[in-house]
Amino acid sequence: MAAGGELQLLGSWYSPYVIRAKLALELKGLRYKYIEQDLFDKSDLLMRHNPVHKKVPVLIHGGKPVCESLVVVQYVDESWTGTEPSLLPADAHDRAMARFWAAYVDDKFFQPWRALMRSTTDEQRAEAFKRTIPHVETLEGAFLECSKGNGFFNGDTVGLVDITLGSFLLWFMVVDEVAGTTLLDDAKFPGLASWAKRFLTLDVVKRAMPNVEKLLAHYKIFLVKLANAPAGYS
Amino acid sequence: MAAGGELQLLGSWYSPYVIRAKLALELKGLRYKYIEQDLFDKSDLLMRHNPVHKKVPVLIHGGKPVCESLVVVQYVDESWTGTEPSLLPADAHDRAMARFWAAYVDDKFFQPWRALMRSTTDEQRAEAFKRTIPHVETLEGAFLECSKGNGFFNGDTVGLVDITLGSFLLWFMVVDEVAGTTLLDDAKFPGLASWAKRFLTLDVVKRAMPNVEKLLAHYKIFLVKLANAPAGYS
Repeated sequence: MAAGGELQLLGSWYSPYVIRAKLALELKGLRYKYIEQDLFDKSDLLMRHNPVHKKVPVLIHGGKPVCESLVVVQYVDESWTGTEPSLLPADAHDRAMARFWAAYVDDKFFQPWRALMRSTTDEQRAEAFKRTIPHVETLEGAFLECSKGNGFFNGDTVGLVDITLGSFLLWFMVVDEVAGTTLLDDAKFPGLASWAKRFLTLDVVKRAMPNVEKLLAHYKIFLVKLANAPAGYS
Repeated sequence: MAAGGELQLLGSWYSPYVIRAKLALELKGLRYKYIEQDLFDKSDLLMRHNPVHKKVPVLIHGGKPVCESLVVVQYVDESWTGTEPSLLPADAHDRAMARFWAAYVDDKFFQPWRALMRSTTDEQRAEAFKRTIPHVETLEGAFLECSKGNGFFNGDTVGLVDITLGSFLLWFMVVDEVAGTTLLDDAKFPGLASWAKRFLTLDVVKRAMPNVEKLLAHYKIFLVKLANAPAGYS
């Protein structure tokens, strides 16, 4: 058990990065106070606790902030090492692979997928979808390699890579809905497609995830704003 | 002591990322076989062991590859936990801060500094230098916060953040030499400037670092190629 102290999470309900922090906390069965942040009018609390990036999530534990979603997930795992499930594998090489694939999701996969998510025309969507698919292929291979025949990247329980990629699953659904696409196609990516279904049925995941209809409405408004925004809007 | 098996490191002598892997191995006092790679004519060995990124460093341990420099450093630390020094702090919050600042170096500081390193005119250099300095200021604050009055980010021994930023120190020197600048100015950044001097005097660092004159010659050739290269050369 880690040193005591209240847990507070500063977040935005639609942020995949915040979902990661929620998932880590929920998986460890920890109680925390969630404080919604308006990213268009940042609070003193946020600015004070994440002066470098001014972003969510920020996990505040006994008054001390931890920022950046993958750092938060590892912090939660290492602060409550005795509490199952472990969010990283026990074996050093398996841990390295988990960190490698989590970084791959954020550094490589995210870039073309972000372009897909921000596409406002069919042409843009087709182009971005095409650029995203090779990364999904790579992640399908990663799933087969990491899961070793079990249901999750982390084995038979959810861990770092499941959290990192899983945090995007509802976003994949709403982007698919708008674009008329299927990113995690059953036939092309059977490993990932079945993993995603399995992941989303977990109670702990349901507690950490937003309502998909609400997210779809949020995304549609975002796209309208984006289509009417000056260049460079983000 | 970690599971046995030969250690091989695939690298390029001038790469800061490879220096990180070398530093981790040297700090733990491990014997390894270094295999220089030509990044303009990639070997089968490299392609087979890092098919995703096709980049160095790759640490091969008992036949299993570990890729991405920060993953490698953490792998070495976690595989030889009993061997001093620890490359990450023992305290969970301090570990989170170490991971946060290591990521800051790669995700935030590196971008403007890369532009500085790739500048081929005085105008470009002045602009990129100006954009880099706020990040050095942030890192000066990080040093004061992490070191807690000790000589290194990691306390009284070298750790993850020292390795991550320290891997660039000779590159800072050669870029300064060509540009006539001083990135880690004594007066502006006394913490970082004295840290850099302290870091570079360590025998273990000297063993992991290339010859600075050779690096300067390499950098000058790189700049000539860059100035004559078609747009997009990297």
